[in-house]
Amino acid sequence: MSENWPYPPEHRVAELFAAAKRVQEQAYAPYSHFLVGAAILSSSGRIHVGCNVENAAYPVGTCAEAGAIAAMCAAGDRDIAVLVTICDSVDVGTCCGGCRQRVREFAQPSTPIYACGPDGVRATFTMESLLPTSFGPENLSGFVS
Amino acid sequence: MSENWPYPPEHRVAELFAAAKRVQEQAYAPYSHFLVGAAILSSSGRIHVGCNVENAAYPVGTCAEAGAIAAMCAAGDRDIAVLVTICDSVDVGTCCGGCRQRVREFAQPSTPIYACGPDGVRATFTMESLLPTSFGPENLSGFVS
Amino acid sequence: MSENWPYPPEHRVAELFAAAKRVQEQAYAPYSHFLVGAAILSSSGRIHVGCNVENAAYPVGTCAEAGAIAAMCAAGDRDIAVLVTICDSVDVGTCCGGCRQRVREFAQPSTPIYACGPDGVRATFTMESLLPTSFGPENLSGFVS
Amino acid sequence: MSENWPYPPEHRVAELFAAAKRVQEQAYAPYSHFLVGAAILSSSGRIHVGCNVENAAYPVGTCAEAGAIAAMCAAGDRDIAVLVTICDSVDVGTCCGGCRQRVREFAQPSTPIYACGPDGVRATFTMESLLPTSFGPENLSGFVS
Repeated sequence: MSENWPYPPEHRVAELFAAAKRVQEQAYAPYSHFLVGAAILSSSGRIHVGCNVENAAYPVGTCAEAGAIAAMCAAGDRDIAVLVTICDSVDVGTCCGGCRQRVREFAQPSTPIYACGPDGVRATFTMESLLPTSFGPENLSGFVS
Repeated sequence: MSENWPYPPEHRVAELFAAAKRVQEQAYAPYSHFLVGAAILSSSGRIHVGCNVENAAYPVGTCAEAGAIAAMCAAGDRDIAVLVTICDSVDVGTCCGGCRQRVREFAQPSTPIYACGPDGVRATFTMESLLPTSFGPENLSGFVS
Repeated sequence: MSENWPYPPEHRVAELFAAAKRVQEQAYAPYSHFLVGAAILSSSGRIHVGCNVENAAYPVGTCAEAGAIAAMCAAGDRDIAVLVTICDSVDVGTCCGGCRQRVREFAQPSTPIYACGPDGVRATFTMESLLPTSFGPENLSGFVS
Repeated sequence: MSENWPYPPEHRVAELFAAAKRVQEQAYAPYSHFLVGAAILSSSGRIHVGCNVENAAYPVGTCAEAGAIAAMCAAGDRDIAVLVTICDSVDVGTCCGGCRQRVREFAQPSTPIYACGPDGVRATFTMESLLPTSFGPENLSGFVS
């Protein structure tokens, strides 16, 4: 995807940041007031976005990354090449553990993940660095068919 | 929306059924093999779709309805006018309770919900008939601000 | 279980109410401040309790009913004979849809569910009345083995 | 808790392993057939256990760790000193990301987490090593009150 493997070219990150920021404005977060946006570049080259959708019954809400993954799957894509998230917390806001697990189902250990704030990228990770020694489909081998 | 309030005109239901069926084919369900599609007509007149997205860690998977709602919110819409779901179970397959709660956040008691199988509509409900005496934002009044 | 089938004797409901109220005080709800307690009478005659456990990542929190069901299963029981929930909302606070689905996995259509407030029972339901025409294990027949 | 800080004495780990293995047998996993047990030593010195509880609607199922945390909270404890999980996968089976997030709410970066198989401990982690640069309550500071 770039000379700086596994990281994408800067203009791609800028494009994803813009998409994440745009969808963040649509977040439905009347309970936490904490707006999150996510943009996925899939291996097909398309961008899929999502925002958090809260619910009066908190546990049935959905995270921004879940929305973006749902959009990706609905569009027929299955591989996350790059993930960009954005939130407005004072410090770096990374994906929650639940979303790291969701992303892991469709990513590689080297998949780049960017945690952004209002002004741009705050921290850069790989999938493996955010969810080391992960649980995954391999663990179900021999159990589920 | 139609003379047959609260139900939409038949051609609208047919359009939603087609959209739900199309996205059902994209469902990612390697663990249950149970493919689900959902299509929402929002009050803006747009259609938003979603499919189920399973995960090796089952509880972090997402239902089709959650994906469609996430797409709706990401697009800036907030009102579910009609919901159509489709699955391939032998008998009528309705929304799970979690999704009834998700839909309720953005629907009215009279919002029509259609449960479909491969050949078309199998059963018709309203929001209130699927989730009577529901928990909702009103219950949090005075607690969350 | 009583002459007033499917409803249990009043002293049983009182006992469950007391258990639900006691565990409600242990709820971990720093984000919503909305404390919920749940008590299950299983068919073995034992009582299992749970409270809501919130999380900074809202969707990974768990409801009181989920905790009570987890305790029931851990204790080796599999049948919910009666469920009592308690919360402090101004109006009747019922189980969210997600919990209705959780309870349904281990209940009968006639299983009594009591929604309580600080002073006692506010409303009485059966499983079927809270989650009519439900999705359930039967829908997966032929898909999951 | 031990000379080998932050790791507990071996007999404590053995005790937690036995508790996790015992509750694993109670797991309700008719869909994945993948049984999981979890045992928490809380800072009060008590042990709290949980098993996974699946649901026909996969996303509303609950993980073993969620059950153990719910039991811990219901008992009035709030600090996870040690976590032990057990599953039967061929390779090491660690907590899913969702559970790492759940544990993180009640743990310290140095909290030991043991991933076990049928014969005993397979791998040892700390909270921070399983969920680095985590999302947490601090991120909501200024948003939720």
